[in-house]
Order: sequence, then structure tokens, then C-alpha cells
Amino acid sequence: MSLDNIRIVLVNTSHPGNIGAVARAMKNMCVSDLALVSPKKFPHDEATWRASNATDVLDSAKVFETLEEAIADCGLVIGTSARGRRIPWPLLDPRNCAKQAYGEASKHKVALVFGREDRGLTNEELQLCNLHVNIPANEEYSSLNLAMAVQVLCYELRMTALDGQLSSNPLEEWDQPPATADALARYIVHLEETLTELGFLRADAPKQLMTRLQRLYTRARPDEMEVNILRGILTATQYQIRQQKLATDERN
Amino acid sequence: MSLDNIRIVLVNTSHPGNIGAVARAMKNMCVSDLALVSPKKFPHDEATWRASNATDVLDSAKVFETLEEAIADCGLVIGTSARGRRIPWPLLDPRNCAKQAYGEASKHKVALVFGREDRGLTNEELQLCNLHVNIPANEEYSSLNLAMAVQVLCYELRMTALDGQLSSNPLEEWDQPPATADALARYIVHLEETLTELGFLRADAPKQLMTRLQRLYTRARPDEMEVNILRGILTATQYQIRQQKLATDERN
Repeated sequence: MSLDNIRIVLVNTSHPGNIGAVARAMKNMCVSDLALVSPKKFPHDEATWRASNATDVLDSAKVFETLEEAIADCGLVIGTSARGRRIPWPLLDPRNCAKQAYGEASKHKVALVFGREDRGLTNEELQLCNLHVNIPANEEYSSLNLAMAVQVLCYELRMTALDGQLSSNPLEEWDQPPATADALARYIVHLEETLTELGFLRADAPKQLMTRLQRLYTRARPDEMEVNILRGILTATQYQIRQQKLATDERN
Repeated sequence: MSLDNIRIVLVNTSHPGNIGAVARAMKNMCVSDLALVSPKKFPHDEATWRASNATDVLDSAKVFETLEEAIADCGLVIGTSARGRRIPWPLLDPRNCAKQAYGEASKHKVALVFGREDRGLTNEELQLCNLHVNIPANEEYSSLNLAMAVQVLCYELRMTALDGQLSSNPLEEWDQPPATADALARYIVHLEETLTELGFLRADAPKQLMTRLQRLYTRARPDEMEVNILRGILTATQYQIRQQKLATDERN
């Protein structure tokens, strides 16, 4: 399912640059329906410039005189709110907001409403919203830039839309298969043999060193190619040691 | 636990405005350690202006010549990366990145490294990072503004830090206790009585209407004060009906 039914509504924005930055943030997260309620300056070069290559979102933005008109066709309206408003309202965090908005967007239009840069939405505007959402920012410095707030909520929508498609395996896109346990075990044997030939590992010394090296390589989970490289290094090392030994033997 | 051990590292930033916007985004999310690797212009008025009231983060920012110096004391280094780099690397999404970074930040410094506005981090810089993180943006328009990317990752860190402290109950901060089931049931009885007196509800009609009204009010979960207000409306309505009835009776 897409985010086509999600509408970002900006009320009475002062700085056109913020409108452009919002368009870019939306497009980055696959949200494209932008409504502007009485923007102070729009269209404006600063908006176009800050939109970077998201001018398509700006170009298709609709301008309304009132918030009521901008949300008229929406089945769910969620307003962004600071904490501690006088009249409490059902309040979501951005993650639960995204779940609710995305869940309902399969059935009807959902508006996310953002207020003015300096003082947000009025109480009257907040009362037009079914739910409120609050970004749990630093209590001593809680006011996000407008486009940043849009970015955070659109990012959460995108994460919700991608739920189940994102891999939780950090090695998902690895280009080589992991080395098998057997290949790793053979490497460790080869390593021990080489370190013994090097005189680095004494046969009579405690096994602590090999235990640590085994832990290191097991944890690192080398892939097949990496184990081949590591074994190549050991073979080259052994060759040098043996050549050196031959040379020394010849001299004596 | 705080986010004091999280360091944001910006490499070779071109626009000082972005550095300011990053400082604001960090402070909004309670992150304060900012390191700048060879910024093109810093300090700069544009940075100070865009930082809004987060100039303390800017003022305490440390400037380094190389990425190696900026991350020298860090136990975990995570680099931001576009998808599809030539050499795959363990890759996290922002949520798992935050969990890993926050988990380790109780023990040592953790760096999140962000590259240049136009081309991110070089392969050499990415190879200095233990892990990579990718924001799963629109595949056809994936490049976030630098400060937006910092905002998203710092937001995820803040959400991780607040885990368990955020209420999933949207009515958490309600100022009134919810009406009890009994108070709601008595309201429904009162409503039915009043609607009957109004002649709106016929005693012989199907009960569908009351079922729908009961569903509406049960779903809305009115609080104590709201039920009192609703009952007050019914009482006033009944008073009017009865006065009207008295006047009519007297006239007849």
C-alpha cells in the first residue's frame, strides 16, 4: 500500500524556504499530497530552491484559505501539538501516529496538520483534529523546525509502510556467502600451524592465545572470500618461513 | 541513561547553514556532542542563525582536520551510507542503529558520521566505520538534506532513550477521570427518557436508534465532566418540554 492518501497540511507558514524543505522531506519519504493554508509567501523562489528536486510536490501543492477547506475530504485529521495544552486531547507519539494514519489511509484521506513556525496551531485549529501528535523532544528545547517535524512524521510513515520489508539482518546485502564452520575451523588449524612455525606460538605455552584468536574470527564471521584471503596470507607466510629455513640450513 | 556519549560527526560540510540546522536538530533530541571535520565555512553567521537557540551546541563543537581524529576516542563508529556501495558492509536501518548506538553508549563513545551534502562519505571514510546505517528513503529520490538525516537518526536515538517512558495510551494526560460504565448507563437511560418526552423516540419504534446512540457514546468514552455536561443538557431540555407542556395544558 502506498502513502498516496496521506496529506501534509501547513497552516499559515511564514518562510517560503520551509515550504520547499517540507516538499523535499515529503518526497524523500514517498509522500506527495501537500496542502497550504494561507501561506505568507507562495509561490516563491526560496521555496523552489529549498525543494531541491522535489519541485513536482511544490507544483502540485494546493492552496486553501482555511484549514476547514484543506481537510474537508479527510476521514482522519491529526494535528501536531506541543505538550501541555489547556484542553487535553487524545495524544499520540509519532510512531503510533504513523500506525494509525497508515492503517486508515487504505480507506480514506488522512491529514497531518502542522502550524506556524513561531506558535503552531491555535486551539481552534487543534479542535478540528480528531487526534493530536507530539514529537517527544527535549523538554527544555522542544520546538523543531517545521520541515524537521514533517520529516520525522513522514519518516515514521515510511517505516510503517516498509514494515516487514526492511531486513533486520545487517548482512542482508552481503555479496559473498559466509564461510562455513568447517572452513573457519580449518583456517584456525592452519593459523595455529603457521604461528607455531613462526615461533610466535610455543607448543608448551598455554592455549589462551589460540582461544582468543578463535573468538576473534568466529565473532567477525568472515565470508568465504575473506577466509580464502586469510589462508592465502598463511600460505605465503609459511612459504617465507620455509625458504628462510632452507637458506639457513644451506648456509650451515 | 542520557545521550551524552553520542557524537555527531559532520565531514567536510559545504553549507554553514546545514551545520546550524544540525545543531538545532541535535539539541531538540538531547544530543550535544558535535564534531566537524574540515568544514568549508565555520564559524559562520548562517550557522548561528540556523541554529536558532542551539548556539551552545555550535559553541562547544570541536573542529578536526581528519575523520580519524574526530573518532579517535570512540568505541563504535557508524557511518551513514547510500545503498548499493561497491563493497558491502554490515548495514542497519535507523531504528536498529539507534538501539545499537544507545546500547553501547552506556560503555563508550559512539560516533554517527555524516558525509558531504553532494556525495556523502568516501569509500575510505566508510571503511573507518564499524557499521553503516541507511535511511530507507524513496528509491527514486533518496538523498535527504544533511540536517534532515541527522534529525531522523537523533529522533530514533531519543525514541530509544525514552523507550518505556512514552505512554502508548493516547488519553494518558487527560485532566478528568473517565466516566464509569454506570454513569454512562444512567446517561443513556436519561437520554432515552428525554428523547421519548421530545417525541423523537417512539416507544413502539424499533430500538435501533438507542443502540446507535449508545454505541456512539460508549466509543467516545466521555469523561466525568463531559457526562455531567451532557446530562445537564438533557435536564434543561426536559425542563423546557415540561414548561411548554404546562403552558399548553393551561391554555387548553
